Amino acid sequence: MRPSAAMTADGHQAWIQTQLSLIEAAIDEALPKGELSRTKLFEALAYASLGGGKRIRALLCLASGQALAADPAICMRAAVALELIHAYSLVHDDLPCMDNDILRRGKPTVHVAYGEATAMLVGDGLQALAFEVLVGMSQLGLAADQCLEAIGALARASGPQGMVGGQAIDLAVLGSAMSFVDLAQLQGMHEMKTGALLKASVQLGLSCRGAVELHPAVDRLLNQYAAFLGLAFQVIDDVLDESASTEALGKTAGKDKAQQKPTYVSLMGLEKARGFAHDLHRQSIDCLAQAKKIDSGLGAEGMAHLAALADLIVLRQH
Amino acid sequence: MRPSAAMTADGHQAWIQTQLSLIEAAIDEALPKGELSRTKLFEALAYASLGGGKRIRALLCLASGQALAADPAICMRAAVALELIHAYSLVHDDLPCMDNDILRRGKPTVHVAYGEATAMLVGDGLQALAFEVLVGMSQLGLAADQCLEAIGALARASGPQGMVGGQAIDLAVLGSAMSFVDLAQLQGMHEMKTGALLKASVQLGLSCRGAVELHPAVDRLLNQYAAFLGLAFQVIDDVLDESASTEALGKTAGKDKAQQKPTYVSLMGLEKARGFAHDLHRQSIDCLAQAKKIDSGLGAEGMAHLAALADLIVLRQH
Repeated sequence: MRPSAAMTADGHQAWIQTQLSLIEAAIDEALPKGELSRTKLFEALAYASLGGGKRIRALLCLASGQALAADPAICMRAAVALELIHAYSLVHDDLPCMDNDILRRGKPTVHVAYGEATAMLVGDGLQALAFEVLVGMSQLGLAADQCLEAIGALARASGPQGMVGGQAIDLAVLGSAMSFVDLAQLQGMHEMKTGALLKASVQLGLSCRGAVELHPAVDRLLNQYAAFLGLAFQVIDDVLDESASTEALGKTAGKDKAQQKPTYVSLMGLEKARGFAHDLHRQSIDCLAQAKKIDSGLGAEGMAHLAALADLIVLRQH
Repeated sequence: MRPSAAMTADGHQAWIQTQLSLIEAAIDEALPKGELSRTKLFEALAYASLGGGKRIRALLCLASGQALAADPAICMRAAVALELIHAYSLVHDDLPCMDNDILRRGKPTVHVAYGEATAMLVGDGLQALAFEVLVGMSQLGLAADQCLEAIGALARASGPQGMVGGQAIDLAVLGSAMSFVDLAQLQGMHEMKTGALLKASVQLGLSCRGAVELHPAVDRLLNQYAAFLGLAFQVIDDVLDESASTEALGKTAGKDKAQQKPTYVSLMGLEKARGFAHDLHRQSIDCLAQAKKIDSGLGAEGMAHLAALADLIVLRQH
């Protein structure tokens, strides 16, 4: 695959590095201080949300916001909220009653380090915190209705019609209460389980635009970009689970096969799945190109970061 | 104790009965439809949130809103969001890694009926749904900034500085990582664990007021009313855990003693704890009386329901 970013790889990497430290600092700032410090929860909230991760959702949000010349401080709040939701979902996913995983980002999972009860509370607390952080965008000057738009998008994407619903379908499949007969059904599950939050990442960035006008066709195309990317992300996840090592992933590899889970790899084979991911990547880049044609005022740097993030997601090795 | 409601007990009971069916219908309407129906999550969301409970939080919200002549349809959304948060907290609380309880509202707990993984997803999904429901208030005509005010209040009350933080302190005490030396510390924990959401119940009702002016002193007094009531609620909970039967409670009785949990009863004795609850009740009623003196325009019926709810909470047998 040929990278499509109209930006040097170094330029994009430098941007990512800068954003990663800003995201880390912003998450740290969002975590509760003071009174809670006597509890394990206090430390566990930081353990679960700081110090790692690819921050794909935050970066998608920041790049989308940048494409619309949104206030970076406001976008950073949205980015933090997305990462808090993502972090909570990982903590709950790893619990014994779900995936029962002991390794995440190369470290013991939260319940291994702090116990199951605390891990559950960490997830519950991070979710509430995410919505609190989004409300804070209005104090930074974002119009209340755009703030509500962002909150609504995040709630829908993470709730029963989004991430949580996708998890439930996944559970039903694992427990053999449901079986997939085709790729369309697998895709429907992933659109909820991981796609919805990735799509929300772009939507939240767009919600931070303030007074900048958003052309409806551009809105639609950027959403499509995110949808193709979300799917590509999952296909690559399945490919990596089959082909990468636990060390490279920072989480247990080969789990899908061990659990006889239906994946893009099990349904299409490894090579076809790779090719599918690359097709989706090309389609997502096409959406960006079309959006730029419709609105030449879109920030070139933000759009270039969106393209480079698509490259990153499909070319990643972990 | 003498009931303080300036309303016949029958009048209040009739209001409650009407509201309970409206709340039930509104929760049902808020639950996701369609696509999810093939999963256990779909049924379990309804199981966890419908068909029971005292709906104290919803009623407090509706009565507060009524006192400020708020739109009942908007208040009902806020009431639903509060009950969804409360329902999620019960589902997660009952899990084996927390209280490990098998009985709730006289029925098997969600994890007993649907499995632990589904119970966790139910809680996660109900929380997201609560925020989605609040966003919907703006579509019913509530000003976006008041809608944000409500979302912020709910997020703070249910997150690490509120309910979840209180749970964490409770856990730390049970695990003997912390010990209470006095009532003030016990109270601090309960203010977070149950008080914050009860306080938010009144705050959300007030947020629904639309263009009606809210005198700052009235705001403060109604919040104090809720704070006294929240505390009374917990004291009575401790009293009932000691003195009522499992059958009457619809949940396992005598658990505090079995777990050697510090409670108002263990720290004060049964009779003093009862007396303390009645003092708190009187103080909460005083707040209402003072608020009425400051703003004679407060809706008499809403204020009477608030007083009657205080009676109900302190006089309840389960």
